[in-house]
Amino acid sequence: MEPKIALRDLRVGIVGLGLMGGSLALALRGQVAQIVGIERDALTRQLAEREAVVDATFETLSADVPPLDLLVLATPVRAILAVISELAQTRPDGCLLFDLGSTKQAVVTAMSALPSSFAAIGGHPMCGKETAGLSAATTDLYQGQVFIMCPTLRTTPVLESLVLRVIGEIGARPVFLDAAEHDAIVARVSHLPYAIAAMLMRLAAEERLWAVSASGFRDTSRLAGTDPRMMLDIVLTNSAEILAALNDFERELHTFKELVAGGNEPGLGEWLAAALVRYAAYRRYRSAEPPTDSL
Amino acid sequence: MEPKIALRDLRVGIVGLGLMGGSLALALRGQVAQIVGIERDALTRQLAEREAVVDATFETLSADVPPLDLLVLATPVRAILAVISELAQTRPDGCLLFDLGSTKQAVVTAMSALPSSFAAIGGHPMCGKETAGLSAATTDLYQGQVFIMCPTLRTTPVLESLVLRVIGEIGARPVFLDAAEHDAIVARVSHLPYAIAAMLMRLAAEERLWAVSASGFRDTSRLAGTDPRMMLDIVLTNSAEILAALNDFERELHTFKELVAGGNEPGLGEWLAAALVRYAAYRRYRSAEPPTDSL
Repeated sequence: MEPKIALRDLRVGIVGLGLMGGSLALALRGQVAQIVGIERDALTRQLAEREAVVDATFETLSADVPPLDLLVLATPVRAILAVISELAQTRPDGCLLFDLGSTKQAVVTAMSALPSSFAAIGGHPMCGKETAGLSAATTDLYQGQVFIMCPTLRTTPVLESLVLRVIGEIGARPVFLDAAEHDAIVARVSHLPYAIAAMLMRLAAEERLWAVSASGFRDTSRLAGTDPRMMLDIVLTNSAEILAALNDFERELHTFKELVAGGNEPGLGEWLAAALVRYAAYRRYRSAEPPTDSL
Repeated sequence: MEPKIALRDLRVGIVGLGLMGGSLALALRGQVAQIVGIERDALTRQLAEREAVVDATFETLSADVPPLDLLVLATPVRAILAVISELAQTRPDGCLLFDLGSTKQAVVTAMSALPSSFAAIGGHPMCGKETAGLSAATTDLYQGQVFIMCPTLRTTPVLESLVLRVIGEIGARPVFLDAAEHDAIVARVSHLPYAIAAMLMRLAAEERLWAVSASGFRDTSRLAGTDPRMMLDIVLTNSAEILAALNDFERELHTFKELVAGGNEPGLGEWLAAALVRYAAYRRYRSAEPPTDSL
């Protein structure tokens, strides 16, 4: 059995120094032996070095990158899949692998097919901002947030223990989920909310509307500010679940439209009250904040 | 011409001591001669008196209510319409009239038909909370918020001047709008955001979803907490504009569904980018916060 690795001895590589990868580096800085950033964008590499977000940067995961214990993939999903597909060449000795991608079935399938010199587990921190990039990264982005972990055929106890300690170090709360269940759930609590915020923003794009809009519009439209490169990969790698959620949403829309068109007062009263009852239950559930180790 | 009334001499009656009426009373307390609350609910009347939110309370706008200069209607829209329909009986000497209702065409039409002993103007403060009732009222609810005013056939310069001073006193920013234009705009920036938040909440009503939901879900669903009694009156008095907004939204939904179902990468890329471009323009517009006296 592989030995347990102490965090203070850990050499971490983070591929992608955007909001998520950059915030992970900031949260781990000083707690691990070394953090190397692998980032395609030259300006982001400069910023990461100038602010000492990482100890060294590289443009690609080439042979120049020093030996690493743990590699964390923190790019949009299709770039994560591209890196995994080349790992047998770029890291011929294998390594421990973890990712922060927004959808999990494609990533977990790719991780499961890696050579046995790799140990790999999928991850998805349920946090973010409507502002992308390293300049938006913060030390406390993960603090108190749910961090979903999706086991693969290449998940080992040593890797799982290490990743749980990393998640604990950055203050997040681990939740284990099957990749398929993950993708179905986030389609409803993350991708659908994004899509309806974007639809709202697309149809309410006039200054005369914005001039009188208030906090309700601001909050309901906020997710429309999400990085479209990240969203494109999400949509393309989770289209079946997103379509199912959109179809459910369309049914709700039809029901409401019929009640409004018919001036159905009792029906509307029930519909509106049910929304409030469920919202109140959701808020109670969230304010209770149970310790979540698994669902 | 009627004489201009000083705020410190003003006797104000507020019908409905909920979030909006209660916050207005708190913001005007000490700045006007007298504030009387007319409130059907006995517990709310007790709370208002115990906390000295108003100087006196009455259950209905009966003959017991002392003479008032300005009457502010701060209930859901259909209760506002009911009070207006009885004003010729309940306030036979007439008075200055103002309202805080969420839709304006029905209210402005009813105000315009009042006897000439009344002067009346419609109002709609663009603020709120997802928590209703007097216990949620605050002194600063209106501070910095847009306050829409809709003239009626009964609007006089004296009333308009008085209401502008009241709006200034509570720190809000007046915006004049035609009632029909108001109802069309708020259908898109307020009623539609509510409706999609409620639809999202209705279909994502399971703890296993809430357990991994994050700030995006929280913000997109927030308006589902809106008081359903207020929303019922909004929907029943603005159904044509709400249906038009829902139809526009449904077209956006169909466009997006087709792009997702077709795996149309260039089309999806454009759709997602357009949402971000419009969101960024909206945020720039709001952060500039131009002085808004009219649109």
